[in-house]
Amino acid sequence: MPRYALGVEYDGSAFHGWQRVEAGVRNVQETLETALSSVADHQVRVVCAGRTDAGVHARCQVVHFDSDAVRDARAWTLGTTSRLPADVGVLWCREVPDTFSARFSALSRRYRYRILNRQVRPAFERQYLTWELRPLDHSRMHAAAQFLVGEHDFEAFRSAQCQATHARRHLHSISVERHGDEVVMDIQANAFLHHMVRNIVGSLLPVGRGERPVEWIAELLAGRDRTLAGPTAPAQGLLFVGPQYPGEWTLPTENTFTPREPE
Amino acid sequence: MPRYALGVEYDGSAFHGWQRVEAGVRNVQETLETALSSVADHQVRVVCAGRTDAGVHARCQVVHFDSDAVRDARAWTLGTTSRLPADVGVLWCREVPDTFSARFSALSRRYRYRILNRQVRPAFERQYLTWELRPLDHSRMHAAAQFLVGEHDFEAFRSAQCQATHARRHLHSISVERHGDEVVMDIQANAFLHHMVRNIVGSLLPVGRGERPVEWIAELLAGRDRTLAGPTAPAQGLLFVGPQYPGEWTLPTENTFTPREPE
Repeated sequence: MPRYALGVEYDGSAFHGWQRVEAGVRNVQETLETALSSVADHQVRVVCAGRTDAGVHARCQVVHFDSDAVRDARAWTLGTTSRLPADVGVLWCREVPDTFSARFSALSRRYRYRILNRQVRPAFERQYLTWELRPLDHSRMHAAAQFLVGEHDFEAFRSAQCQATHARRHLHSISVERHGDEVVMDIQANAFLHHMVRNIVGSLLPVGRGERPVEWIAELLAGRDRTLAGPTAPAQGLLFVGPQYPGEWTLPTENTFTPREPE
Repeated sequence: MPRYALGVEYDGSAFHGWQRVEAGVRNVQETLETALSSVADHQVRVVCAGRTDAGVHARCQVVHFDSDAVRDARAWTLGTTSRLPADVGVLWCREVPDTFSARFSALSRRYRYRILNRQVRPAFERQYLTWELRPLDHSRMHAAAQFLVGEHDFEAFRSAQCQATHARRHLHSISVERHGDEVVMDIQANAFLHHMVRNIVGSLLPVGRGERPVEWIAELLAGRDRTLAGPTAPAQGLLFVGPQYPGEWTLPTENTFTPREPE
């Protein structure tokens, strides 16, 4: 049966996350499956590259699904989008070999976290920003974040509900930059644990506020104790930029893996 | 009576524009005046730098108002914001001489217009983007826009409802750039006519799509006939970046006028 990969964009503000948790709770997966099933004229199930929590957005989530329905890329893209609510859309579609998995073929995932750092809460773009009123030293946050680069056991930064069998992940790169009032963290790893990005942000914030030394992040990482790390940062500042795959799958270039230079 | 200038940010999505049009219709002016009146403990009336239409956003609208109430900048900023709904906030407050007018002291205004140029409608950030599915040549749009720079009669680009006594305006600069899927127009003029930015965008779009020659914009400008120009572009792609004032008023730097080099 032919397999397809889809790029999917969504505003997570009004969703209870990617996954169906219980009946009647609005989630992206079910919303997408309903629209795809209508186009396919049979029940479609999707597998995604990265499950996102309630309130988290995606610039390019990637999913795969199988269908015998004879439809072209335009039908899977525009036909499906026309059946979706305004806060989800299908960006592209590629037929892929059935050895492709949106989840297991991905070599890395990228996330972005946006913090508005000023005295007044955000009004414009507020659903995409976390607000921090105390001044943040982004260069301290950036320096602290570099302790996380490489392959480590990220036990200190996983949630209690995390179902992964182990906490070893390879963090390829992490940067913290300031653009005016905004402090932006970009992070790429082979894969992420549950709440890992938000827990890293939650521990970088006290460093940025000067309440903790830069080396605290190295201590937390080595200590592997979640209870010592900072609180989980809010969901709405988090954007799943997308997963990256080996070039052989010929997915759109923003989804093709390019290893970063070691920092 | 002391006069104050305020910087105000808002998401225009759920407002019927800046101005009170009729009772019971949600507008930014009345929302702000209600909050300021509560802080001042008397009825406050504000005058703004640029009235925005329904659905148009503002990064930094500027208003002035008079009050005898003894309040510091923190009360006018944070106290007022705490009484405002989530889609409006006060960014800063400065006491100014009573010769200052948010409207008449402004030397220029800046607007930004964002167009998402791809096959699929936007989901993420959709309330801040206008969607154009046909390919746009932004360099043609930029070249055409340069005919508008300088002092001209912009009759061709004002709405039928425009109440200005004449249509002469000085357009300081206009640029059209592409950032990936996004085409962004930045425009600065001493002042704008009703619907002027959206009507300019509406006429640059056919140029970008290749349906009209670059010189068409010069013809429209010279012809001074609104009925020949393109349709008014949608409101939600439009952002009022803010007004600029002479340095003597010592307002925050992003609101201080810096004349652009002639292009």
